[in-house]
Amino acid sequence: MSTLSVPNLAAAAGPVLEFERRILDSVPEIEHWFRLQWLEHTPPFYGSVDLRNAGFKLAPVDMNLFPGGFNNLSDDALPCAVQAAQVAVERICPDARRLLLVPERHTRNVHYLLNVARLVRILSSTGLEVRIGSLAEELTEPTTISLPGAERLLVEPLHRNGRRVVLDNFDPCVVLLNNDLSAGTPEILQGLDPDQTLLPPLHAGWSVRRKSNHFACYDEVAGTFARLVQVDPWMINPLFARCGEVDFRDTASNECLVSQVDQLLAAIREKYQTYDIQQKPFVIVKADAGTYGMGIMTVHDASEVAALNRKQRNKMAIVKEGLHVSEVIIQEGVPSFEKVEHGVAEPVVYMIDRYVVGGFYRVHPGRGIDENLNAPGMHFVPLAFHCSCNLPDPRAAPGASALNRFYIYGVIGRLALLAAALELERWDPANSGATDRGAPTSSTTPALAG
Amino acid sequence: MSTLSVPNLAAAAGPVLEFERRILDSVPEIEHWFRLQWLEHTPPFYGSVDLRNAGFKLAPVDMNLFPGGFNNLSDDALPCAVQAAQVAVERICPDARRLLLVPERHTRNVHYLLNVARLVRILSSTGLEVRIGSLAEELTEPTTISLPGAERLLVEPLHRNGRRVVLDNFDPCVVLLNNDLSAGTPEILQGLDPDQTLLPPLHAGWSVRRKSNHFACYDEVAGTFARLVQVDPWMINPLFARCGEVDFRDTASNECLVSQVDQLLAAIREKYQTYDIQQKPFVIVKADAGTYGMGIMTVHDASEVAALNRKQRNKMAIVKEGLHVSEVIIQEGVPSFEKVEHGVAEPVVYMIDRYVVGGFYRVHPGRGIDENLNAPGMHFVPLAFHCSCNLPDPRAAPGASALNRFYIYGVIGRLALLAAALELERWDPANSGATDRGAPTSSTTPALAG
Repeated sequence: MSTLSVPNLAAAAGPVLEFERRILDSVPEIEHWFRLQWLEHTPPFYGSVDLRNAGFKLAPVDMNLFPGGFNNLSDDALPCAVQAAQVAVERICPDARRLLLVPERHTRNVHYLLNVARLVRILSSTGLEVRIGSLAEELTEPTTISLPGAERLLVEPLHRNGRRVVLDNFDPCVVLLNNDLSAGTPEILQGLDPDQTLLPPLHAGWSVRRKSNHFACYDEVAGTFARLVQVDPWMINPLFARCGEVDFRDTASNECLVSQVDQLLAAIREKYQTYDIQQKPFVIVKADAGTYGMGIMTVHDASEVAALNRKQRNKMAIVKEGLHVSEVIIQEGVPSFEKVEHGVAEPVVYMIDRYVVGGFYRVHPGRGIDENLNAPGMHFVPLAFHCSCNLPDPRAAPGASALNRFYIYGVIGRLALLAAALELERWDPANSGATDRGAPTSSTTPALAG
Repeated sequence: MSTLSVPNLAAAAGPVLEFERRILDSVPEIEHWFRLQWLEHTPPFYGSVDLRNAGFKLAPVDMNLFPGGFNNLSDDALPCAVQAAQVAVERICPDARRLLLVPERHTRNVHYLLNVARLVRILSSTGLEVRIGSLAEELTEPTTISLPGAERLLVEPLHRNGRRVVLDNFDPCVVLLNNDLSAGTPEILQGLDPDQTLLPPLHAGWSVRRKSNHFACYDEVAGTFARLVQVDPWMINPLFARCGEVDFRDTASNECLVSQVDQLLAAIREKYQTYDIQQKPFVIVKADAGTYGMGIMTVHDASEVAALNRKQRNKMAIVKEGLHVSEVIIQEGVPSFEKVEHGVAEPVVYMIDRYVVGGFYRVHPGRGIDENLNAPGMHFVPLAFHCSCNLPDPRAAPGASALNRFYIYGVIGRLALLAAALELERWDPANSGATDRGAPTSSTTPALAG
């Protein structure tokens, strides 16, 4: 397995090799630390993390709690995924027999449906009876959808039975959302019987969740981890800022955005000078809630924000399900220096429970190293990136080993997963101060052991 | 993965396909049942199970609690093995940092040393600092052993420090035995500090353990499982009997053996008649304690026992480490109808914690379908048998799918593992009635939920 091909990392110069060495020298400390963290914090059922590897910096840029690309994982990743799902089921509800999967409403996207089929296969292999229940109002009776390769999915309408959500003749112990609830929290899922486990919890949906809250938690996790392995936390953490009252259709109101972009670019410039990095700093402006690569732009200078044309402004103003964007996160742009088949590539790490179960490269031949790759024209390359993220090879030369590169991607992916665990604890509406999105009180803030 | 090659099962006629169908139709019930069993019973740290597939019958014939063939697993099995070991460490001692591996004494067997190296890799990848401590008295200082492929092992002498077993500058939290203690329980491992976890426990060693106790527990497990999937327990369970006072060098004293062989052959004959099986029944006589395929013979008629020549009798009388055999188990012989590369083959399933992590075929071209294959001249074929034992494919035609065959092997392997868990509970010297090898009292007998 040491002969796996690994994408060329154009900028793999001094700092990244030093960083890799630090991680590989600290494997026992890192794994011990993760074990203790997972005693304190409950991992989400699943998640995927988009990473960007700039050579001088390796950082998560997005953390998805409703991952939609399981079909892009290599077949080789399946056994580990099933094993991890078994662990999750044993932990959450060992007595479970029936699981209800609630997918996105857009039931005509074949790629997404293949993801649902792959999830059904993983979950069924753990020995659960799995059925699919849709939130789509137009779905009024059980409907069979044919997929490429003779696969078929039966999607059924959800019903409410007292405090439980059910299908006809199917009362599930576990309801697993693969729907990010961008359109709001559906009534049918509210106030469920505590015996019916809903995963992830409703406040993980994008109508409640904010990227800036996630990255605030990640700040903490990255800080503690950086102390453990003795690196500058900036090497694994993108700087960010937030504006809560943006109206893209009224440029005058965007002073906050212009000033935050300016300050963030200055902070990045300073870091680049410290490490003698010859890149042009940039930031990514995106909706603080939401997904699917919509409402994202690359900005190299604050003046670009004021100069947006009408089309660009409209594009930024509305994301998935027609939601208006008023809250944005401004995130340090991390250039991607990985290339796969001549396209700029970014690794996406998939996790179930606290285990990395695989990943792939998102590749976009039409985009630059400083652009969002989650856009039409992208494709996915599972590469050698199956479930070999837990096999560091301490004897390999720095920079040369795919196993080591993927192990490190798995470590950063798990840091983001841990941040998501903290985020879900802190923003749990059951904790005071969480529902109004104010800062959590210190009494509800779990400590992160260093 | 559905195109994996699968060895030809010559006798795959009616009954085995019916059995396969029953198992595949019951996957949710089976996995649910296993989950509940593992709430009640603690799985051994690891284990391997030898299976024999007769077509009409699929049964474990040996269960090893100190598995020695991890090097025979496919490289593809490594990620699942690491993940399972992580689960085991999290369960047993999440705070563990250092693990001491105690291998067999015979440090010159390259195959065995490759197994040790593979175990070190799996355990190190979980983030534990792993070192190797030897019980061999001739090893008085740290010794580096070179292995094929530039790999090296550092083996160090064990020391005792108060109630802890240590190496120089290495005080481990966990001591993992890969030594089956055939020669007796070494003093250096006795009476350890309860904070130093010894795995498997000392009473798993062959100086205490008896195959007949294991198969008594397996009887129970197989009975409960057979009710669950509604098959005759005999289809997954070899009949057996035991003689406690055998002296192979004094044929006159072996009345017990002759009569037990006779009775067992009659019982098998009856089953063969019931299922219209056109095979000649046979039994395997082997030492009730011990391993390595020594002291094993195939018997088709009780008269063969009385007619043993001197050489055969000597061979049966002494097993590994010069131990004399006085207790034997007489086990129903399960012919193996699987062939790999023209050699008779039997699957060996490897497990860590409660997960199947891989397996291989033990192949012996010079042996018959009714003979022990664990003998000089055997070789190992990891085949497509990596970690795909948890991916049943309910849509495949019965008998046609490697995934389904391996899933079923994994199920039977886990039944034997569960029997080993029961065995270790019941024969724990901490429970009354266990040390004298009498039947455990009912108060120490954990119930097996059906």
